[in-house]
Amino acid sequence: MVKIIRVNMTDRSVRVEPVPEAWLGLGGRALTSAIVAAEVPPTCHPLGPSNKLVFAPGLLSGTAAANSGRCSAGAKSPLTGGIKESNAGGTAARQLARLGIHALIIEGKPSGEGWYGLRINNAGGVVEEESETIGKGNFAVLDALHRRWGEEIGIITLGPTGENMMAIANISTKDPEGKLRSFGRGGLGAVMGSKRIKFITLDDSEASNIPLVDRPAFLEASKKFAKTLIDHPVSGQGLPIYGTAVLVNILNEVGGLPTRNFTSGQYADHDKISGETMHDTIVARHGEPTHNCSLGCQIQCSQIYNDKDGKYLTSGFEYETIWALGAGCTISDLDIIAEADNIMDDLGVDSIETSVMFGVAMEAGVLPFGDGEGVLRLLREEIGKATSLGRILGGGTGAVGRAYGVTRVPVVKNQAIPAYDPRAVKGIGVTYATTTMGADHTAGYAVTANVLNVGGKVDPLKNEGQVELSRNLQIATAAIDSTGLCLFIAFPALDIPECLASAIDMINARYGIKLTGDDVTALGKKTLKIERAFNLAAGIGPEQDRLPEFFELEKIAPHDVAWDMPTEELQSFWKGF
Amino acid sequence: MVKIIRVNMTDRSVRVEPVPEAWLGLGGRALTSAIVAAEVPPTCHPLGPSNKLVFAPGLLSGTAAANSGRCSAGAKSPLTGGIKESNAGGTAARQLARLGIHALIIEGKPSGEGWYGLRINNAGGVVEEESETIGKGNFAVLDALHRRWGEEIGIITLGPTGENMMAIANISTKDPEGKLRSFGRGGLGAVMGSKRIKFITLDDSEASNIPLVDRPAFLEASKKFAKTLIDHPVSGQGLPIYGTAVLVNILNEVGGLPTRNFTSGQYADHDKISGETMHDTIVARHGEPTHNCSLGCQIQCSQIYNDKDGKYLTSGFEYETIWALGAGCTISDLDIIAEADNIMDDLGVDSIETSVMFGVAMEAGVLPFGDGEGVLRLLREEIGKATSLGRILGGGTGAVGRAYGVTRVPVVKNQAIPAYDPRAVKGIGVTYATTTMGADHTAGYAVTANVLNVGGKVDPLKNEGQVELSRNLQIATAAIDSTGLCLFIAFPALDIPECLASAIDMINARYGIKLTGDDVTALGKKTLKIERAFNLAAGIGPEQDRLPEFFELEKIAPHDVAWDMPTEELQSFWKGF
Repeated sequence: MVKIIRVNMTDRSVRVEPVPEAWLGLGGRALTSAIVAAEVPPTCHPLGPSNKLVFAPGLLSGTAAANSGRCSAGAKSPLTGGIKESNAGGTAARQLARLGIHALIIEGKPSGEGWYGLRINNAGGVVEEESETIGKGNFAVLDALHRRWGEEIGIITLGPTGENMMAIANISTKDPEGKLRSFGRGGLGAVMGSKRIKFITLDDSEASNIPLVDRPAFLEASKKFAKTLIDHPVSGQGLPIYGTAVLVNILNEVGGLPTRNFTSGQYADHDKISGETMHDTIVARHGEPTHNCSLGCQIQCSQIYNDKDGKYLTSGFEYETIWALGAGCTISDLDIIAEADNIMDDLGVDSIETSVMFGVAMEAGVLPFGDGEGVLRLLREEIGKATSLGRILGGGTGAVGRAYGVTRVPVVKNQAIPAYDPRAVKGIGVTYATTTMGADHTAGYAVTANVLNVGGKVDPLKNEGQVELSRNLQIATAAIDSTGLCLFIAFPALDIPECLASAIDMINARYGIKLTGDDVTALGKKTLKIERAFNLAAGIGPEQDRLPEFFELEKIAPHDVAWDMPTEELQSFWKGF
Repeated sequence: MVKIIRVNMTDRSVRVEPVPEAWLGLGGRALTSAIVAAEVPPTCHPLGPSNKLVFAPGLLSGTAAANSGRCSAGAKSPLTGGIKESNAGGTAARQLARLGIHALIIEGKPSGEGWYGLRINNAGGVVEEESETIGKGNFAVLDALHRRWGEEIGIITLGPTGENMMAIANISTKDPEGKLRSFGRGGLGAVMGSKRIKFITLDDSEASNIPLVDRPAFLEASKKFAKTLIDHPVSGQGLPIYGTAVLVNILNEVGGLPTRNFTSGQYADHDKISGETMHDTIVARHGEPTHNCSLGCQIQCSQIYNDKDGKYLTSGFEYETIWALGAGCTISDLDIIAEADNIMDDLGVDSIETSVMFGVAMEAGVLPFGDGEGVLRLLREEIGKATSLGRILGGGTGAVGRAYGVTRVPVVKNQAIPAYDPRAVKGIGVTYATTTMGADHTAGYAVTANVLNVGGKVDPLKNEGQVELSRNLQIATAAIDSTGLCLFIAFPALDIPECLASAIDMINARYGIKLTGDDVTALGKKTLKIERAFNLAAGIGPEQDRLPEFFELEKIAPHDVAWDMPTEELQSFWKGF
């Protein structure tokens, strides 16, 4: 029997509730957004008692479906002021699903200064006062909780930045190796911090297996599905071998690798931070170039990156982080970027928001461009210790821009723009501008047709076709984000018809229903419309669906292009719903 | 012949232009808002080259009309993100009018790191490189420029906070005593800083007198007008004797004096910071309890406040500053508040934004409530020196709230809420929520009918009638702000029919036109609609016409009242246009 677990932090009560009819067919992002839209006043203070933090596994979570390990977290974002869904790999989705938890809703706010841990198990949950782990980094939290309750426990954890309610704070969760994955974007860690919850443990030791209404059909669909992931060149070869950092050289080649705080589209030292270099370095140091972030992953874009002495340095070392500190801040030393990545995991910060922020901080003169040691110091000594400078930096890219009067501030709805320059890859620019999430490449990854020739081809330098491309991708993404499937299934899904068909077959076999492709599209559309309505009610209207002015004023090399999408064309995005 | 002076800081050119037909009948706020709306893209970065800083004297500026010394400054605000008009007393309006300057428009932005001074005289103007005064406080700037060009020169100046483009930075201007008045609100100093202009001098030594089309009619109207100012008890007695601080005891009595960062409506130590105490202190120390901020002022609400040794401490010592540091921060020592006021003048910061910000900083634990010495230290050592903490505080009330995760943050559209609690004085709450300016009591001073029984009586604790009251006041205010007349003429204008009639007669006699009362109302409405349209295009929509959530969640003593204005009622404000 699936259930809602509702935790009220005002009185520390935990209630087990039946799932309302309207939410039964939803999972992941569709569910967190539906709950946030239904229960959170759009105009509330994101760190006040009216905001709610919601976790939801996807429709396929906990099954043997390949790449079904994504868990969604939702709330009103302290960074964007709008609705937020951020999803992560790791073990949480699987454990929540096995515990029959459709959604975990955390609401209210304690009046005092105390901290709490939330323990969820088969019987429900309990809120307990916590002291040992307070002020500690995420890795120390994992160690402490493993000692306390064993290695099998699932953990969702908050770093010190989340305790300090910084807008760059993420929420972290354990992966199968006991390392960290992140609900990265939108400052959800600050929301968890405002609820004064340091960690959530998930004990599924007494849970039963996920029921499958039509097991043979599920297994058959599941095999077909997995095969498409292996057959596609991006999910079957590019990502497994080089990780997401395979994109460094590709984006540099097309002139869309934002360099030195978005002042060029190419980085002279791109080879030093490329996926190819990372792969060779990992192999030479006996790390693991190919690694999964959740059970049942067929793509395995993660890796274990060791230092010069062969000692673990970081994992889940993503293109966006490598790009932002590498090309964005012109730090050409992959070891320093890896060390920064590990510190960011420990502090619990969104590595995109934080790394892009450093580019603006460098432009502001807080530290010189290229100063990798400076970044490490600022992370450890300022952000980690919540000094005054740390509080400025911890506010994220937009806040640093405001504090120092910088005008070249790459944000949309106050969230940092990631690793693809919208002037040279115009489809992703449409996504940045229009998504409900604030600048977010994963909301509608138009790099596919703009650059990778996946799902067709749309000239990245022209405006034609970009709005439609982004719209279709955003709809599909909202649906995928609701299944618990990793977004990287989009690569085969866009090129191999059996991929999406077998994914839908898995959902149908799991629940004994008969969804069609149109139903899935409708779910994606409905989710986006719910999110959009929340944002409009929160005061985020069409005028905020735009890129910052500097993209229009400043052309970048090598294509000598500015952002020139007419406003009416951009705003036609939401007319297509 | 009136003219526009257009200064382009990109190439440091100064052009003298004829006044376009559409702008000829406008002055003050009506003109700055019309120019900003016509020439500034609403979505531009407020510190970028596309924003423009506009100064305009009012329709009656430079004449012998009583209280006609207000000068307007306008731009897109870096604090609110919307349109901004802020007006100040002093000598600038008179000098600009005498020079025949209808408006001074500063546009563009230098590419380098150099600083400039702008010198305006009868022949036009010139931009010159500047070094001596850079980094200096406003008083030192006045001294240096007086030494350089004599005491008669008019000066508009930027403090070090403006150089650092802090959002609390104001623009200062000289009063007849050589002290400072401020274009206080909305961070216009940051805009001037972004243009890299340290000061503007106004040399009207070769200017001719203001032409009056019908001199006898003007003089007659002017006499009648002045008499109404003297006859009304508020402008004729309350303000001259006690200054604006007369309001401390009045607001405390009605339970609308926001105390300890808006957690109560009454302050136990109100007597220590009252206008009555200030008056007695000034008299005992041989200061000046009654003083003008501009030539021809009949109200003279200003004063010269000396320290214990009879030495000048500050002037223009306003209720809002005294309230915010006094009741708001529970600093009960008027001498410390006066010293802070003087430092704020020297640094060039909006004393409302800055003082309200300290209340939030105290709630965040940056310093204890009541720590007056701490405020002085933070002003001098942190804000003044632009340290990291200074940069946080310099971002204003909203920025401090975000940096420390405080939820009780009294701002509307990111601008600090002034000295009247909207829960106990609901009419002013409507003004805070709906004005185009961000929270601004002067935009529609409903304290009149809510508390002072001026212009009728509307129960301050009830919602009924407040929207209409605020709307009528906002329309009238926009008109008054366009004349160059001090807003305090509203007290007699609301109660004595000859006041407004004679003001209109003065305008008609000055220009040889035949405006009616309806024309003036139409001007006010038109100005508000222009400002509103700018804000909507900038992404500030009706959902942002609201008070922060905590006013709804938290009741205050003594009336045990929360903010409970229905959203539809509040949003009906703009339907009345």
